[in-house]
Amino acid sequence: MIKVSIIGATGYAGAELVKLLLQHPKVTLTHVTSESHQGLALSEVYPHLFGLTNLILESLQNLPTIANDSDFIFIALPHGHAMKVGLALQDTPVRIIDLGADYRFNDTTIYETWYHVPHTHPNAPSVYGLAELNREAIKTAKIIGNAGCYTTASILALAPLIQHKLIDTNSIIIDAKSGTSGAGRSPKQDTHYPEFYDAFKAYGVATHRHTPEIEQALSDLNGAPLLINFTPHLVPMSRGILATAYATLHAKVTDDDVTKTFETMYGKEPFVRLRGEGAYPNTKYVRGSNFIDLGWHIDPRTHRVIVLSAIDNLVKGAAGQAIQNLNIACGYEETTGLQLVPMYP
Amino acid sequence: MIKVSIIGATGYAGAELVKLLLQHPKVTLTHVTSESHQGLALSEVYPHLFGLTNLILESLQNLPTIANDSDFIFIALPHGHAMKVGLALQDTPVRIIDLGADYRFNDTTIYETWYHVPHTHPNAPSVYGLAELNREAIKTAKIIGNAGCYTTASILALAPLIQHKLIDTNSIIIDAKSGTSGAGRSPKQDTHYPEFYDAFKAYGVATHRHTPEIEQALSDLNGAPLLINFTPHLVPMSRGILATAYATLHAKVTDDDVTKTFETMYGKEPFVRLRGEGAYPNTKYVRGSNFIDLGWHIDPRTHRVIVLSAIDNLVKGAAGQAIQNLNIACGYEETTGLQLVPMYP
Amino acid sequence: MIKVSIIGATGYAGAELVKLLLQHPKVTLTHVTSESHQGLALSEVYPHLFGLTNLILESLQNLPTIANDSDFIFIALPHGHAMKVGLALQDTPVRIIDLGADYRFNDTTIYETWYHVPHTHPNAPSVYGLAELNREAIKTAKIIGNAGCYTTASILALAPLIQHKLIDTNSIIIDAKSGTSGAGRSPKQDTHYPEFYDAFKAYGVATHRHTPEIEQALSDLNGAPLLINFTPHLVPMSRGILATAYATLHAKVTDDDVTKTFETMYGKEPFVRLRGEGAYPNTKYVRGSNFIDLGWHIDPRTHRVIVLSAIDNLVKGAAGQAIQNLNIACGYEETTGLQLVPMYP
Amino acid sequence: MIKVSIIGATGYAGAELVKLLLQHPKVTLTHVTSESHQGLALSEVYPHLFGLTNLILESLQNLPTIANDSDFIFIALPHGHAMKVGLALQDTPVRIIDLGADYRFNDTTIYETWYHVPHTHPNAPSVYGLAELNREAIKTAKIIGNAGCYTTASILALAPLIQHKLIDTNSIIIDAKSGTSGAGRSPKQDTHYPEFYDAFKAYGVATHRHTPEIEQALSDLNGAPLLINFTPHLVPMSRGILATAYATLHAKVTDDDVTKTFETMYGKEPFVRLRGEGAYPNTKYVRGSNFIDLGWHIDPRTHRVIVLSAIDNLVKGAAGQAIQNLNIACGYEETTGLQLVPMYP
Repeated sequence: MIKVSIIGATGYAGAELVKLLLQHPKVTLTHVTSESHQGLALSEVYPHLFGLTNLILESLQNLPTIANDSDFIFIALPHGHAMKVGLALQDTPVRIIDLGADYRFNDTTIYETWYHVPHTHPNAPSVYGLAELNREAIKTAKIIGNAGCYTTASILALAPLIQHKLIDTNSIIIDAKSGTSGAGRSPKQDTHYPEFYDAFKAYGVATHRHTPEIEQALSDLNGAPLLINFTPHLVPMSRGILATAYATLHAKVTDDDVTKTFETMYGKEPFVRLRGEGAYPNTKYVRGSNFIDLGWHIDPRTHRVIVLSAIDNLVKGAAGQAIQNLNIACGYEETTGLQLVPMYP
Repeated sequence: MIKVSIIGATGYAGAELVKLLLQHPKVTLTHVTSESHQGLALSEVYPHLFGLTNLILESLQNLPTIANDSDFIFIALPHGHAMKVGLALQDTPVRIIDLGADYRFNDTTIYETWYHVPHTHPNAPSVYGLAELNREAIKTAKIIGNAGCYTTASILALAPLIQHKLIDTNSIIIDAKSGTSGAGRSPKQDTHYPEFYDAFKAYGVATHRHTPEIEQALSDLNGAPLLINFTPHLVPMSRGILATAYATLHAKVTDDDVTKTFETMYGKEPFVRLRGEGAYPNTKYVRGSNFIDLGWHIDPRTHRVIVLSAIDNLVKGAAGQAIQNLNIACGYEETTGLQLVPMYP
Repeated sequence: MIKVSIIGATGYAGAELVKLLLQHPKVTLTHVTSESHQGLALSEVYPHLFGLTNLILESLQNLPTIANDSDFIFIALPHGHAMKVGLALQDTPVRIIDLGADYRFNDTTIYETWYHVPHTHPNAPSVYGLAELNREAIKTAKIIGNAGCYTTASILALAPLIQHKLIDTNSIIIDAKSGTSGAGRSPKQDTHYPEFYDAFKAYGVATHRHTPEIEQALSDLNGAPLLINFTPHLVPMSRGILATAYATLHAKVTDDDVTKTFETMYGKEPFVRLRGEGAYPNTKYVRGSNFIDLGWHIDPRTHRVIVLSAIDNLVKGAAGQAIQNLNIACGYEETTGLQLVPMYP
Repeated sequence: MIKVSIIGATGYAGAELVKLLLQHPKVTLTHVTSESHQGLALSEVYPHLFGLTNLILESLQNLPTIANDSDFIFIALPHGHAMKVGLALQDTPVRIIDLGADYRFNDTTIYETWYHVPHTHPNAPSVYGLAELNREAIKTAKIIGNAGCYTTASILALAPLIQHKLIDTNSIIIDAKSGTSGAGRSPKQDTHYPEFYDAFKAYGVATHRHTPEIEQALSDLNGAPLLINFTPHLVPMSRGILATAYATLHAKVTDDDVTKTFETMYGKEPFVRLRGEGAYPNTKYVRGSNFIDLGWHIDPRTHRVIVLSAIDNLVKGAAGQAIQNLNIACGYEETTGLQLVPMYP
């Protein structure tokens, strides 16, 4: 048993972490923090947890005590805050899994350009926390920058095609759609129920912050920089991301070539479900689980490939992925505590 | 490890049983049947199960083989069909948990009146499968007639008040609301998405078949027959039942008297969460779990008590309750495989 | 053509008024106010109105000018604010239709008890604005206190039975369910989309402020005071109220007696649709229209009558009713501008 | 007043036609047909119409009588059926507006390739019914092939850019999202409420039948054939289509160039609302209206333009567009009966 704590437990990603950690057989959840709700029981803020935990929300000011009582610390704070925690803990033995963006970039100047805040912890001993691409580095990292939600869906959809050089890397367009839980728990005008139901729109066109994160991972695989178009949309649902990725295939690439790259890269991955060519992944089929489902289509008329990927943004896109990283970092079986059957219907 | 099978695995209750049994540490799921989809993989009919099970749907004609290979059989068939299975297995050692109505009535003439079919297995060695009221009898029963969804929510809301004689038993009105998963998986006009969303209506007023089941349990507690009004409604959501139960308190009954009856009856129940006087249970807080949440209110102007109860109709109202009964029948810890944290949001 | 203005145009009731008035053939909408958004175009606050109106939101400080330029003023402000406007306009010729609670009570001490604010305009020249009960008085009233949403659905469901003395007036229970638009446009935690969808709960049990308003109207019909239980619930949808009203029939009252009272009272009403005995009104069937649909059921076992009523809370429960009152007050055909076909699906 | 009839009035497009025609000041709706519900009152099949129309559903066998009693006939039948009606009426004076695909293609071999049925009425006196592109031809046409839903949203998003030669016509990708009303009224497994809510998926990748219709219109504007990728998705909502269209701008094309093409082409269109560069059209803002809202974005990094368009698929994508065409064909003001304020919220 290891001891873990959550800094920022009252956002949706934090609450999902609590859920999954309470069911994890090798973990004890010891501390949870929230600045806005400190002093309250976690189950007062999230009544679904009534009777399941007695944890009281603490202030981040208790960080030294918390760190002393934790082997791992998950951070689920808005960007810009995790790096302060990372710096504060740099000389302690505690290891960190950050669910935000602060530790996702190799080049912190890119972070600064897109996030509009200075990065105060460059050269941190951190790795990018997407197990399917970076498993070895995760095992021993001090800090794991857990991959983002849209980015997980987008990168894993295209990684095989780029790694195997099947597509024109100037042709990539990712049209992504997310449920509203990804926008957080704070009520806002456009996520107010009467405004949000029976409504559909795009946002952040050409400016969304997951763009450079996707480009970083795909450029690494490509061995050379590439640029993409990434367009997120809000779906009137709670959980789930579907990414529809478009790219032009190189001449003579066949359907079989495409299928083989997926099988080669993901054949042994415990959380990647290859639905196959012609398949239509549905966010509903992965809801509540750590799976990513992948399907792909080739249009013979335009010689484009269209890859579809589906995840639960709060699980494979956040808390589940974080626990997958924890399992790797602890040397546990990667699926420990993550053998989650999707909720249906 | 015991071996269990599911007769009728492709309805929603069946699928929820599959989900929960796949995660149960002391159970192996050996057979699943479906007449309409026999020969298909279960994961073809329910793609969310892709990669989680290799079970193939069999025909009920294989019942003898299935029974030989099972310690327990769950039946999730429309009413009228389970009794055939019960009869066929009466001389085998296999024990049965029926999620339908066939084995819920002490007096099968009541069943015949409300369900409009003859009962071909009267005097069956069956008990009513609502653990909070009937735990002892469940331990050794050959056949367990798992309590219905509306009935679980309704009976548990009122049981303490009746047992402790706090209310006028002629004054009971239960106004209940259910998500659409309770209406089954077959697509129908009025559960077609465009018709069902942003819509609300009642149905089955004064005629719903859960009425006599509620009356049976409450009359037993009362020690004398009683009649109720029960009105179900369809909520544009998938899972969840909220029952709003009204009754007139006897003169001089106080708030404290009411609260004490709930605490006395349910204080040690693992799946009953007493939210207390003035509380508002929400179906969302129990979704995906086996909990029933209870809150109660007293109107001093009319001296009525209003009890609110919330369950997930597919879990505490069907599959979870069935496993709770299985655990009792097997002598397992009652919460085995049912330590489910609700999905939120 | 008359000139009308809206005080408080940026709540949902105000926006629905704008929609309906823009389509009304005998009305010019001249002014709209909003304290929080003054100076903005109405179509900036409500982008669906883009291109349909050039009105700019003014401050209530412009009230004298607005009154000079209006024959009628609609007020759609939170309770406690309309009476200030009413007082300010008492010596002007402008007539007022208040969509809030300030002018709904004959006895302002009841208002003060339930709304917890002093009433500063008692003995106002106001009438209760529910046309089906009070048409004559509305014709000439200076101030019309437009009936509330839950109250319209509840009162019209029971009025015929009380007027014709068919029910025990001590037995009335109204279990009502509303979409979330009734809770206003301000985003709140519990109407945040991820919290609200796939969720169902009650609120305001035994304390909701529409209780005394229902009691006032039903007591008037009864000729003697009566008390009711009223329980509101929140449905995961936007528009619509369904009220399920229960009462015990007097001995010997028959199904025909019940049906006749509805036909007698509402046979000529343009907005009351009698669906008949055994019918199930659905909020979807009235969405976007000014109709109230009524169905009724009699349980021969308990001799209770169950009446079901459905309205669109923003139309017949607010803006549509206000225009119905306007039409009456102006001597227009009552259906002018209200011949709205429900939106389906 | 003209007389119009609807062949196939019980699908969603037919029902929306009924709604709009009942409110149209210059039209009398004389006949409605339905093979599956003939003999029933329309208001039995669509209870929201109760009290609004007494029309009885007739069989198509009455076509001669119906044609005699109609100036215009709307056809809302599945593809393959309208051409039979068109042929039967070719020697009558009645004019036809077909909401299906049968009369949308200049080259009926393309129709046959994508729809897999022989076209039995080639060389029909028909025109493509998209007013913004084809207004003159519509005025006098015998048969109008009303543009499809996805196609309207897609074509109008890209038409200005192609007409003004701003984009690489080999680079067009249209990622479209639709509410479920577009899939019709017949209940199906994947539009069953519990399956469809909180779910998102693509379908018809590289094979959807609206692809050649979009290509036809854009190729005509282009003056040369072009191919596109079109990917539809199902959104858990009822009404609305959002199309996200991508194309690579020619070198040196500026933001202003793009904006000017939209203003030039659509500045005087009554139903096109130009939201401008940087805007995010939302399906909610057009729901229930005949508007198409357009916004556009330019990514300076990739020099792609992203155009967003939103319509109500049943109005501008079907019934509203049909009435717009009717108005043009009759010489009425184009907005007659279509001055619809969107329903919000």
